[in-house]
Amino acid sequence: MGEKYQALVVRLKEIRNVDRAAAVLHWDQQVNMPRGGARGRAAQLATLSKIAHEMLISDETARLIADAETEVGSADYDSVEASMLRVAKRDFRKSTCVPSSLVAELAEAETLAHEVWAEARAQDHFGKFLPALQRILDLKRREAEFRGYSEHPYDAFLDDYEPGMTASRVKKLFDAHKGALVSLVAAIKERGDGVSDALLRQTYDIDKQRAFGEQMVRAYGYDFERGRQDVAVHPFCITFSQGDVRITTRYNSDYLNPALFGTMHESGHAMYEQGVDPALEGTPLSRGTSLGVHESQSRLWENFVGRSRPFWTWAYPQLQSTFPDQLGGVDLETFYRAINRVAPSFVRVEADEATYNLHIMVRFEIELDLVTGAVPLEKVPQLWNEKFESYLGIVPPSNKLGVLQDVHWSSGLIGYFPTYAIGNLLTAQFYRQALAAHPSIPDEIAQGKFDTLREWMRVNIYQHGRKFTADELTQRLTGEPVECSYFITYLQEKYRDIYG
Amino acid sequence: MGEKYQALVVRLKEIRNVDRAAAVLHWDQQVNMPRGGARGRAAQLATLSKIAHEMLISDETARLIADAETEVGSADYDSVEASMLRVAKRDFRKSTCVPSSLVAELAEAETLAHEVWAEARAQDHFGKFLPALQRILDLKRREAEFRGYSEHPYDAFLDDYEPGMTASRVKKLFDAHKGALVSLVAAIKERGDGVSDALLRQTYDIDKQRAFGEQMVRAYGYDFERGRQDVAVHPFCITFSQGDVRITTRYNSDYLNPALFGTMHESGHAMYEQGVDPALEGTPLSRGTSLGVHESQSRLWENFVGRSRPFWTWAYPQLQSTFPDQLGGVDLETFYRAINRVAPSFVRVEADEATYNLHIMVRFEIELDLVTGAVPLEKVPQLWNEKFESYLGIVPPSNKLGVLQDVHWSSGLIGYFPTYAIGNLLTAQFYRQALAAHPSIPDEIAQGKFDTLREWMRVNIYQHGRKFTADELTQRLTGEPVECSYFITYLQEKYRDIYG
Repeated sequence: MGEKYQALVVRLKEIRNVDRAAAVLHWDQQVNMPRGGARGRAAQLATLSKIAHEMLISDETARLIADAETEVGSADYDSVEASMLRVAKRDFRKSTCVPSSLVAELAEAETLAHEVWAEARAQDHFGKFLPALQRILDLKRREAEFRGYSEHPYDAFLDDYEPGMTASRVKKLFDAHKGALVSLVAAIKERGDGVSDALLRQTYDIDKQRAFGEQMVRAYGYDFERGRQDVAVHPFCITFSQGDVRITTRYNSDYLNPALFGTMHESGHAMYEQGVDPALEGTPLSRGTSLGVHESQSRLWENFVGRSRPFWTWAYPQLQSTFPDQLGGVDLETFYRAINRVAPSFVRVEADEATYNLHIMVRFEIELDLVTGAVPLEKVPQLWNEKFESYLGIVPPSNKLGVLQDVHWSSGLIGYFPTYAIGNLLTAQFYRQALAAHPSIPDEIAQGKFDTLREWMRVNIYQHGRKFTADELTQRLTGEPVECSYFITYLQEKYRDIYG
Repeated sequence: MGEKYQALVVRLKEIRNVDRAAAVLHWDQQVNMPRGGARGRAAQLATLSKIAHEMLISDETARLIADAETEVGSADYDSVEASMLRVAKRDFRKSTCVPSSLVAELAEAETLAHEVWAEARAQDHFGKFLPALQRILDLKRREAEFRGYSEHPYDAFLDDYEPGMTASRVKKLFDAHKGALVSLVAAIKERGDGVSDALLRQTYDIDKQRAFGEQMVRAYGYDFERGRQDVAVHPFCITFSQGDVRITTRYNSDYLNPALFGTMHESGHAMYEQGVDPALEGTPLSRGTSLGVHESQSRLWENFVGRSRPFWTWAYPQLQSTFPDQLGGVDLETFYRAINRVAPSFVRVEADEATYNLHIMVRFEIELDLVTGAVPLEKVPQLWNEKFESYLGIVPPSNKLGVLQDVHWSSGLIGYFPTYAIGNLLTAQFYRQALAAHPSIPDEIAQGKFDTLREWMRVNIYQHGRKFTADELTQRLTGEPVECSYFITYLQEKYRDIYG
């Protein structure tokens, strides 16, 4: 490629550098920052965000894109150059179509709403949150009009997290497996609680939890030379460069699951980011292509691998020798059943594999109504509880454990939830393909070998970064778009084996 | 003040926010960053540095300064507004007088020189470093011409770290106390090595070292709600905001001094930064006014307080109960003498109070010749060793322990060293004033009370930030410019007491 394309890439990398610098500040805020630093940090982040935004929407960037287009012209669709231009144009369009004044209004409303939400949740008082939520929704509706959409204003938001996805497609996908999930969960419930997870709720030394978790994800292939793990209240994975992709976790000395499966989960996100083609480093292409595809990787390593029988065939003796007092007398099968116990619960982030997508469906259906204004806000808690009872068979005893549990709406993150469920569906689809290509994968996992699986994911998904959309990737890899039947089959087989 | 002044402040704060974001990235690089992150981090820092520089030297900033000047006009010299404008104009002038191309050439030369220096030092091979040093000096000489100076090109560099200071003033100051230091050190040497520091070189548990050090600086008044301490190979203090001023230290399990006195040292820098008037927060005025004044505070809390008999009267029983095996049988006097042992050594960062400024004089005198080119580079190691023998009575056995020990020259930091020595002189001057105002300070220190001393420093120095130059501050506080006699008197009295 010529000079004009190179000039565009230089510009895009500079913008990316500012965003990544901001990422370091965010990480530090969650992991290290003393209380007193909040005000200064907010100012620094606001400045970086403003600078990156101004750089992106500038006439200069527009000109560089136009110039590069004359060079890239008819380059192959799959080429880095054509992909770079596609993504740059998409990012540019998204950033320029909403007036800066509305962006600023939203940022301010979200900051306020976040505080109000935290207070409302602490006091279990939805009414307190209502005006702030109303304000967010009003602004988001205006945003949707600027963004544009073909069918439903919700599509404008979905497109941020899952480019190309629409509300009607999500609805169809969800409706296609809601019934199966409800039946599965009900059937398991009917069989009675033959599985106990009490053994996971003993005292587990935190240093040993850390060492074991890191040993597991190192075996998966998370590269600690290009990352590190720290403690954060709300665990996350964050990328500063391909050489520095960090994960965080939280430890509970009375419960083994959060850190163990949390570490595996974040390592999946991290291996995706560490696995992007080095040729894309520093450009807008160097990151996961959508939240759904990202989640497919975190769920793969957390659940499809990390909660599988082959995995624990290899890992359980090590866990037992790490915690002989707690697990020395517990056999593999009992442990395996414990970590796969299905029990409807109120809180999404604690949900098991069978109930998880039902939590998402409750949120998605309500979000659709929120965006159109089809339901009065004061009815939302009731609607939440009704849906919850209908899908999961239980009613949250409070809004704190119900409609107020998640931070997303207060942060303006409408359209984000479905990507979690899409991630679960994609995991099943991708894993099925990997197994078809390499039927030996489960046997390898049972020997603590993860290279074949990780390499398949790297070659087929990770390395492409954002070159292809989730739809393109899924179609190419599986010959069909995102689908729910494989996930349902996976769950049915898994739980038939456990619950009979 | 009116809108124009406010507009300037907004601009200056934005520039500062970018610099402070870069500071977070620097801190992370020293404290946390995995090896793989180096390349990406360098790119991010380069982008932030470029952005901040472009924002500062822009026509927009020039216009805002000119506009604000019409408003600030005849405001009182001591006012925030007049000070802001003075400092903004000074920063602007300094940034604009050197062409960006030369700045970039220097940055590149320094990056290369740093690598070459590290290699040359490891191999104890000055010749390897010579061409890189030559390149740095050539560029620095060009820089000095752009910067301008009245007497000596060295003044242009000094002015970066100690605004207003000149080579001739430093030379006069140094010449005025070199003889006294040489005599003092020689006299102590003559008396024979009656003081042993072997007791400090036992095994000291690192966690206990950390806890004790943090307890001490918390007592000093370093606010951990607005800071934190971490481990770094080369300890430093760094400011992200008045609410987030961090210190770092390094632990040696076989030697108590580095972490203990290092923590005290950095806490002095940090209390200065934490103590700036909140009204100046986020502006270019919110930081220490010069490296010399900054060092006066680190040396105050490390040496004048932290190595004083009153301090250990209070602290030693606590240290003994922290390390009963190591110190239970060592009396206060023996400990006090051990931490104040004078012994000429090769490495500046390990030097005691009596020899420290002699280390600086060696460097300063050589730097003057380097800048003018008065001495051929290949003669520098010999010159170093000759001066070292003449001032300290010992000859470095290698260049690694001699001319190659410091990172400064490879980083283009010419004119930086004198500020360390000026800091020592200023400590004595400022402390003398504090004692004159509050003769009870030593007694308070002996009871673990540091408020009176810290408050005196806060009110007279810290709160002003960069409003006044080091010269202005010193003149106002002491009625004279920086002076060496008080420091010499302090040392003579201290060591007469110890060595007789």
